[in-house]
Amino acid sequence: MRYLTPSIRIRNTPFTKKIEANGVKAYTVYNHMLLPSYFESIEKDYSHLKKAVQLWDVSCQRQVEIIGQDALHLLQLTTPRDLSRMNKDQCCYIPIVDDAGYMLNDPIVIKLSDERYWVSIADSDMLYYFKGLAYGFGLDVKVFEPDVYPLAIQGPKSKTLIEKVFGANISDIKYFRYKIIEFNHQQMIICRTGWSHQDGYEIYLDGTHNAETLWDILFEAGRDLDVRAGCPNPIERIEAGLLSYGTDMNRTHTPFEAGLGWCFNLDHNKQCLGLKALRLKQHPERQIRPVAIDGPQISGTDTYLLLKDSDGNNAGVISSVAWSPDFQINVAIGMINENHWNTGTQLRLETKDKIYNSTIQQQFWI
Amino acid sequence: MRYLTPSIRIRNTPFTKKIEANGVKAYTVYNHMLLPSYFESIEKDYSHLKKAVQLWDVSCQRQVEIIGQDALHLLQLTTPRDLSRMNKDQCCYIPIVDDAGYMLNDPIVIKLSDERYWVSIADSDMLYYFKGLAYGFGLDVKVFEPDVYPLAIQGPKSKTLIEKVFGANISDIKYFRYKIIEFNHQQMIICRTGWSHQDGYEIYLDGTHNAETLWDILFEAGRDLDVRAGCPNPIERIEAGLLSYGTDMNRTHTPFEAGLGWCFNLDHNKQCLGLKALRLKQHPERQIRPVAIDGPQISGTDTYLLLKDSDGNNAGVISSVAWSPDFQINVAIGMINENHWNTGTQLRLETKDKIYNSTIQQQFWI
Repeated sequence: MRYLTPSIRIRNTPFTKKIEANGVKAYTVYNHMLLPSYFESIEKDYSHLKKAVQLWDVSCQRQVEIIGQDALHLLQLTTPRDLSRMNKDQCCYIPIVDDAGYMLNDPIVIKLSDERYWVSIADSDMLYYFKGLAYGFGLDVKVFEPDVYPLAIQGPKSKTLIEKVFGANISDIKYFRYKIIEFNHQQMIICRTGWSHQDGYEIYLDGTHNAETLWDILFEAGRDLDVRAGCPNPIERIEAGLLSYGTDMNRTHTPFEAGLGWCFNLDHNKQCLGLKALRLKQHPERQIRPVAIDGPQISGTDTYLLLKDSDGNNAGVISSVAWSPDFQINVAIGMINENHWNTGTQLRLETKDKIYNSTIQQQFWI
Repeated sequence: MRYLTPSIRIRNTPFTKKIEANGVKAYTVYNHMLLPSYFESIEKDYSHLKKAVQLWDVSCQRQVEIIGQDALHLLQLTTPRDLSRMNKDQCCYIPIVDDAGYMLNDPIVIKLSDERYWVSIADSDMLYYFKGLAYGFGLDVKVFEPDVYPLAIQGPKSKTLIEKVFGANISDIKYFRYKIIEFNHQQMIICRTGWSHQDGYEIYLDGTHNAETLWDILFEAGRDLDVRAGCPNPIERIEAGLLSYGTDMNRTHTPFEAGLGWCFNLDHNKQCLGLKALRLKQHPERQIRPVAIDGPQISGTDTYLLLKDSDGNNAGVISSVAWSPDFQINVAIGMINENHWNTGTQLRLETKDKIYNSTIQQQFWI
């Protein structure tokens, strides 16, 4: 394991003290900020996440606030997803693309009002892209990073915990919708979202001063639910097919290659910079697929693993892999070439130690 | 010390294997990529850097290539520094600002031709800003991240090493100029630059396939010079007053506050988005200062340390601090309020353990 040196450039969060008091064992860096990567162990965190409830410090999901009469126009320029019918209490997952249709980020947009949005970003400085576009197109908007820190409550018992603390009226939020809670004289947004396939919520802490109080109250209320500190879990998110920008797809992939065609269509006439390019790229030659890889256990990788067919031809790459205790197989996400992506296709994964048999799956493990 | 989990999202470099074989002990993350942070120890690396020569894997200084007839125009939009008289073999340090005059990055620009530039960036996704501006202003440019990985050769014996490997014609490059070297059938740029105050060079490795050969040849040629693997050193760079974007200044600071007024003037009529705002911000109320802090040793910090005057008023913050073995004092970089920034001003630094006496310095330790 590698050590990470302390630095102001890699920001602490308002929850870092709580995280460390709860025994965080390792971090990753996300949007220039610390993100916990496991507590007890990746496997034990996983089992707990699937049966109880966890508090996740996901402050690193930085927000870009876009406010002004051209706010929607600016947002729409960046995504093929038609945002015109978005409701005021809605959170919307959007691929963001450049003018050639390649992915720059895959955030969730929260509509605060007709002229005010938060973009809850994956790991790239979207603030810079929005600023550049806003200046260049001369738009009437302000674009900045507000002092907001999401705290996720994830796991099958999250609904019970939210109901205990904020009432059934709040815990009943529909998926990808939000409500406003009043906490310690502050109004905050709570969404029914989160980077797990378990049920969950995200509270958008406004400013830092209520951070530890919020943490403590949730923790105290969750004691009988076995609440623990947690974080996005690689096994659980691969099983669920939740993609990681920068890992499973990046600036060299279109949303079609990333398997995100489901979340938009190209028939609208909204002004998106990449729309024309995407119309020419609807039939990708490679695409994200779930891949099951026989044992023994493969642990997290920091390089792409190559897949080959029986003739030794390149068939694609594995970007994320983890041993699933529940499915007793290595679950993986791969970018697979079209000649090899059909369900049931057998491929060989060659590492320097061993050759593994792998099979393209019909669907993720959900 | 914190652990950093392996991840594809935090990219390895073409030199990572060499770095690990040479005993790297810790990393930081910079532009979504690994950057070594020390080898033997920060103090021993420091002493060695100041007397010998080191190879630094600074691949994380990612390049943004801007090519096309509007390349210079796009660059000039982002910086108050007049780039119109830049020579073709020149490297130029530029503050990059938004329309309000706040700093977004402080890269070195390399002019490859009249219509082609590399921007060697500090830790923020400048690619996104340039793309946004280019689309918005409808500029005739292409903007992308080329497959280029800088390798720095730093230390007082770097000139001898470069002369041995590439000849005196190359080692004689003037400061902030570059030449072209031919290495293993590849042309590459070598600049007389680097993030230390010792003499040094940076070779811009083009592609990955010659990385380990280049490393090995430099290492072999440098054996009698005691060449070692190294990296930017916090003690040395604080002594030299080399600022770290994201640490010593960020999006909340103007170039004047960052003490970078020396590198540009506002009298030209070039089109820079932040020029008008900067004209109103020439007299900052806080500014970077070198600060000497009495012992005992303060180690690297991951939070700002507060400075107060004798009446308990806020006087500023320390962003970078390290114990200097050569000067036998804690050397530091602070953002100091105007009432307290005069040379010789005594301030108190209060940590939870101890109160330290500190003094504003006339200049950095160079």
